[in-house]
Amino acid sequence: MIGAGFMGAAHSQGWRVAPRFFDLDATPEMAVLVGRDSERTAAAAEKWGWAESATDWREVITRDDIDIVDIVTPGDSHAEIAIAALAAGKHVLCEKPLANTPAEAEAMAAAAETARAEGIFAMVGFTYRRVPAATLARDLVRAGRIGEVRQVRAAYLQDWLRDENDPLSWRLQKEHAGSGALGDIGAHAIDLAQYITDSAITRVSGTLETIVAERPLLEDASGFTGTASDAWGTVTVDDVALFNARFDAGFLGTFEASRFATGRKNALRIEVSGSAGAISFDLERMNELGVYDARADSASQGFTTVLVTEPEHPYIGAWWPAGHMLGYEHGFSHQARDFVQAIAAAVQPEPSFTAGAQVQRVLAAIETSAARDSVWSAV
Amino acid sequence: MIGAGFMGAAHSQGWRVAPRFFDLDATPEMAVLVGRDSERTAAAAEKWGWAESATDWREVITRDDIDIVDIVTPGDSHAEIAIAALAAGKHVLCEKPLANTPAEAEAMAAAAETARAEGIFAMVGFTYRRVPAATLARDLVRAGRIGEVRQVRAAYLQDWLRDENDPLSWRLQKEHAGSGALGDIGAHAIDLAQYITDSAITRVSGTLETIVAERPLLEDASGFTGTASDAWGTVTVDDVALFNARFDAGFLGTFEASRFATGRKNALRIEVSGSAGAISFDLERMNELGVYDARADSASQGFTTVLVTEPEHPYIGAWWPAGHMLGYEHGFSHQARDFVQAIAAAVQPEPSFTAGAQVQRVLAAIETSAARDSVWSAV
Amino acid sequence: MIGAGFMGAAHSQGWRVAPRFFDLDATPEMAVLVGRDSERTAAAAEKWGWAESATDWREVITRDDIDIVDIVTPGDSHAEIAIAALAAGKHVLCEKPLANTPAEAEAMAAAAETARAEGIFAMVGFTYRRVPAATLARDLVRAGRIGEVRQVRAAYLQDWLRDENDPLSWRLQKEHAGSGALGDIGAHAIDLAQYITDSAITRVSGTLETIVAERPLLEDASGFTGTASDAWGTVTVDDVALFNARFDAGFLGTFEASRFATGRKNALRIEVSGSAGAISFDLERMNELGVYDARADSASQGFTTVLVTEPEHPYIGAWWPAGHMLGYEHGFSHQARDFVQAIAAAVQPEPSFTAGAQVQRVLAAIETSAARDSVWSAV
Amino acid sequence: MIGAGFMGAAHSQGWRVAPRFFDLDATPEMAVLVGRDSERTAAAAEKWGWAESATDWREVITRDDIDIVDIVTPGDSHAEIAIAALAAGKHVLCEKPLANTPAEAEAMAAAAETARAEGIFAMVGFTYRRVPAATLARDLVRAGRIGEVRQVRAAYLQDWLRDENDPLSWRLQKEHAGSGALGDIGAHAIDLAQYITDSAITRVSGTLETIVAERPLLEDASGFTGTASDAWGTVTVDDVALFNARFDAGFLGTFEASRFATGRKNALRIEVSGSAGAISFDLERMNELGVYDARADSASQGFTTVLVTEPEHPYIGAWWPAGHMLGYEHGFSHQARDFVQAIAAAVQPEPSFTAGAQVQRVLAAIETSAARDSVWSAV
Repeated sequence: MIGAGFMGAAHSQGWRVAPRFFDLDATPEMAVLVGRDSERTAAAAEKWGWAESATDWREVITRDDIDIVDIVTPGDSHAEIAIAALAAGKHVLCEKPLANTPAEAEAMAAAAETARAEGIFAMVGFTYRRVPAATLARDLVRAGRIGEVRQVRAAYLQDWLRDENDPLSWRLQKEHAGSGALGDIGAHAIDLAQYITDSAITRVSGTLETIVAERPLLEDASGFTGTASDAWGTVTVDDVALFNARFDAGFLGTFEASRFATGRKNALRIEVSGSAGAISFDLERMNELGVYDARADSASQGFTTVLVTEPEHPYIGAWWPAGHMLGYEHGFSHQARDFVQAIAAAVQPEPSFTAGAQVQRVLAAIETSAARDSVWSAV
Repeated sequence: MIGAGFMGAAHSQGWRVAPRFFDLDATPEMAVLVGRDSERTAAAAEKWGWAESATDWREVITRDDIDIVDIVTPGDSHAEIAIAALAAGKHVLCEKPLANTPAEAEAMAAAAETARAEGIFAMVGFTYRRVPAATLARDLVRAGRIGEVRQVRAAYLQDWLRDENDPLSWRLQKEHAGSGALGDIGAHAIDLAQYITDSAITRVSGTLETIVAERPLLEDASGFTGTASDAWGTVTVDDVALFNARFDAGFLGTFEASRFATGRKNALRIEVSGSAGAISFDLERMNELGVYDARADSASQGFTTVLVTEPEHPYIGAWWPAGHMLGYEHGFSHQARDFVQAIAAAVQPEPSFTAGAQVQRVLAAIETSAARDSVWSAV
Repeated sequence: MIGAGFMGAAHSQGWRVAPRFFDLDATPEMAVLVGRDSERTAAAAEKWGWAESATDWREVITRDDIDIVDIVTPGDSHAEIAIAALAAGKHVLCEKPLANTPAEAEAMAAAAETARAEGIFAMVGFTYRRVPAATLARDLVRAGRIGEVRQVRAAYLQDWLRDENDPLSWRLQKEHAGSGALGDIGAHAIDLAQYITDSAITRVSGTLETIVAERPLLEDASGFTGTASDAWGTVTVDDVALFNARFDAGFLGTFEASRFATGRKNALRIEVSGSAGAISFDLERMNELGVYDARADSASQGFTTVLVTEPEHPYIGAWWPAGHMLGYEHGFSHQARDFVQAIAAAVQPEPSFTAGAQVQRVLAAIETSAARDSVWSAV
Repeated sequence: MIGAGFMGAAHSQGWRVAPRFFDLDATPEMAVLVGRDSERTAAAAEKWGWAESATDWREVITRDDIDIVDIVTPGDSHAEIAIAALAAGKHVLCEKPLANTPAEAEAMAAAAETARAEGIFAMVGFTYRRVPAATLARDLVRAGRIGEVRQVRAAYLQDWLRDENDPLSWRLQKEHAGSGALGDIGAHAIDLAQYITDSAITRVSGTLETIVAERPLLEDASGFTGTASDAWGTVTVDDVALFNARFDAGFLGTFEASRFATGRKNALRIEVSGSAGAISFDLERMNELGVYDARADSASQGFTTVLVTEPEHPYIGAWWPAGHMLGYEHGFSHQARDFVQAIAAAVQPEPSFTAGAQVQRVLAAIETSAARDSVWSAV
């Protein structure tokens, strides 16, 4: 695994726990953790249960005893590492967003296509698809339970930038993060909407906004959080992204990604309105799915709050009895499971780099539209 | 109408509004308001739209131009007025609880039975039955939607006594109120549970508690609210009533009535668990009903939040389009409608005084049980 | 009152009930109901409690015994009636949207300004401002409780067009309704957002969509609902309006108005994110307001569900004790109260026709933007 | 670890994960899993990551390389194993309920007291105390945030016995389970109520009920779930336990434990009403805590939904950023952490066997009361 930040902890938990609950056709071993800082990486490796640590990813990805490379670094390094790892014959799991630019993403998708011919697979880590309630939403839509999709409304609301004196971390710098709320959390909303509706976004009209443009620089320039220094810098990414989208099946979706939604911590919400029903999901109540059945008896129609913890529900059979909650990191176990099983079966795991690149193109089209006064732009 | 307190305003609104929305077979006219204080009663009569006011109820109930007597005084005067009104050949609507003692209630029920033979009808005002969501709950249970009833859990939670310095109003005095939370709000929970399940309570085990026993006396001893004086008095009724009940259909119910449920303002809650489903209601969200269907597809089971504002729902057709809320006083319009229609059709309106007396016996049995260390006692 | 449809019932209830609960400086009398059909109007007048009925509004508005003209007709007739009534020296209450075109709206605003100089006042009926929770939201924002406003997200979600076989009522015809979801319900969202934030929309980017373009014509072409005929017609208004807006205080808002939001019946939702807190409101739970205080103790921050039924809350003191719900039509009583009190005090009631015309310009700018590929357009 | 059922999986996850997130003063190693069936236990050991498996717990508990014995067998074997393990100088973590009878529990508590003098510690596994929202509830109550406690209402609602044809597992047999809903889930409610309020139950009035008395026997008599056979047997434990309790601080609590609460899967709910506020918790929304502050500004009082995922919240700092949910098994990691840290510091971990035995006495007193017609009985 390359990368030792917050996402590293989540992926480690995924790899560690998945084989304890799921029956896997191959058992992952947590071999090497690669980070920039030798000491810190060694400490993280021990803490998270990796057998070794290293600082040179190029060396590690060519080792014979390595089969899978898991990339959890910031987006600007994804392309280089992933392409090299695929070239070295390693299966690659890469955190989202796939890359910081469409060009990089396309190159990665091309590399993945080439590798695939050799039986080497690549996948991008949109884990929220693997929250059981989100997977169930897709299953219900696919099964026709809400009829024809007519509208999507999606939002990913956070508020961790609310305090204007919070420092300027790498996530607020275009050169590292590519974009702000748009790519970081908007990308999740896009993937989830496309996944649940089984339809791709083809056109967008977008608006990007930086609400607080100047912030204190970090004392330590790396890291997700840190202490503010006395020096100030300019935020070069968006705080808020608003966009509407046309899907290839014809319907419209409305999206918001915000880091200034005061009081909302991690509210990835999606509601899909169909001709015969609707589904409604909120990541802040991730074990629940709202389901509306317009064909039900008229006296008792309404949104049903399904507690998605039944054995029949996606992934749940491997976990606890009904009514026992799953948490954030379970999605990473589900991802590890699905990735391992696909590789063991020599089947392309989803979402592929091609799918990741398409999301990247949507992001780019939103930026294009935003730069052109929100005029509708093709993906 | 006899009585000019808070309940008088609610009943007045019921009489005033019902004929504007419902097609009634007879049109009620708001003739005379009777109160103790001449000036205040006259003012209330004008405010509420009664043609006249008076202070002597005995005189009014014998007037030829009066067909209906609506009693909204404190419980200690119900029996005398109702029996006299029935004897005078007037239909009687009496606020709950029917009386302060079972003996009074039985006398009233007997008087009502006698009057009924003459085509004169009496009804007791458990209006919460007529909240559309509660009526729908009963309809669904009756239609077998939750199968066989297995358990009831009910609570009526308020917190208006939370402040230990709030004064000792008539509702805290046994001689006026009969009992405290038990008779005032517990009675509502009992009626609603019996109504929805169509089963009567036959045995109870109860505990009564007075959390704050000493309070400042009111400067003005009458009235629902008022200013505290320097003198202190003893609360002679319960603040909290906890009881379990056996219903004649065999199942158990658990009940709480509290005026000390901090943060709960008017939370009359009832959940009925059945062999094939459940219903759940909370008066603080009175336009909603929770419905669980255990026969539904296992992947999408859950409590459905039915917005009880559809034309198909009880009483709603007379009001607004779907999605437009009703409030507290609409129950009084429904009560006025049902009472008028029953009288016009010469049919006994429900709940009858007999039903009201049965609730009174349940209350008495709870007091008996509480006095005997909570041993189960027959109603 | 001119107009005898669904809105007529609501306004009638407002006039009827307001003086029974509020102390008014002038007592409204329900004099004449004017409708197109003589018989139906007479029936409605009797039902709703108007002393007379008539079919010629021109005649009625000049009567000496008429002080107030309340206009609840479809939007295409508002301008003519309102301008004539003001010219006749009558105070005018006009349902929203003020008119179907900005030109009409401006003429009405001009007429109102002229009349105002004579002490004659006009108001437009955005009643949702007068839902106590919405008024409280404004009060809290104005008091600085959420700090500086940074974002607004608003939606008005209904689903009454879900069934593609439902007929083509006047609300789906541009010539009568002016626009679809945009003017009918989007206008409410706009007014509420501007009202709560005390800031006006200056620029918009919008998208309009007609999801179901062909529908059966009504057998009876008038009326809100009716039976479908065999003939089909084309829907000439939008079913869904999506728009983003820039407010003059600098922040962005995102809006959706939909009649295809399956399962949502009357969900006017607004959330305002501020630098120090947030408020959140949903008309489907109209007695509640979500309030987030970012200055609170960090361990117990969260959205507080305020039950807006306390005596301290706007309008509530006139109604019931804490915890007793209000419904849809209470807003009309509040509107009647505020209108009467303003007139009695010779003070301009809000929202004025000028405010209504501004909303109309916002609607027009959204249509302009939508026609120009969603490019941002000035109001 | 002794025991290889569902609880074994949960405890294994606790031991596995705790050291990966928390800094522990001693690192637990997962040495030996002991079960009845050799083959199944070996498989479970491999699956869950135990180094060895064994079938004779007596042998294992005396091994020198074992420091901790974790008991997750059914309640009838707890006493024998725990007492032997303590005698062998091993620290003991024992699942709740501590034992099936007060006599066994007292013997265990005595053994633990003896061992404690030697620096050997025992703890009982009421993990729900360690759900961060529940811990926060206790912290807030202890800090005086709700003032003086006045009432508790608690319920643990499940519905897994709803289907009357579901088989008669060991949990429905008195000889194995000791009691039914009472000891299995009621015990959790008791522990949580006592923990949050810091007050012990001294007297109880209880009712026990077996709703479905005859069920098909399991084909395989062991195990939590299984297939029904053709033979029928009698349920010898309660399905529902209703009880009221007097706490030593003087207040009353009302409790329900049910396996027939249709639609409720794992709803451990507790609400504590205080003189200055209230807290409200539901395990089905385990990442949230309701907090009511009666001292807050009167216009914005209400229950605040605290998302208990902030770094300031109990245990959360070790996990994910704000807004990322924890699940059921996180409590077992918290338990493992607290147990290891206490042992490393030679401090008694809580809840002790003494605390566990007190819960057992409360359960016994409820059974006594239930057998005596619900008369109040001393603990």
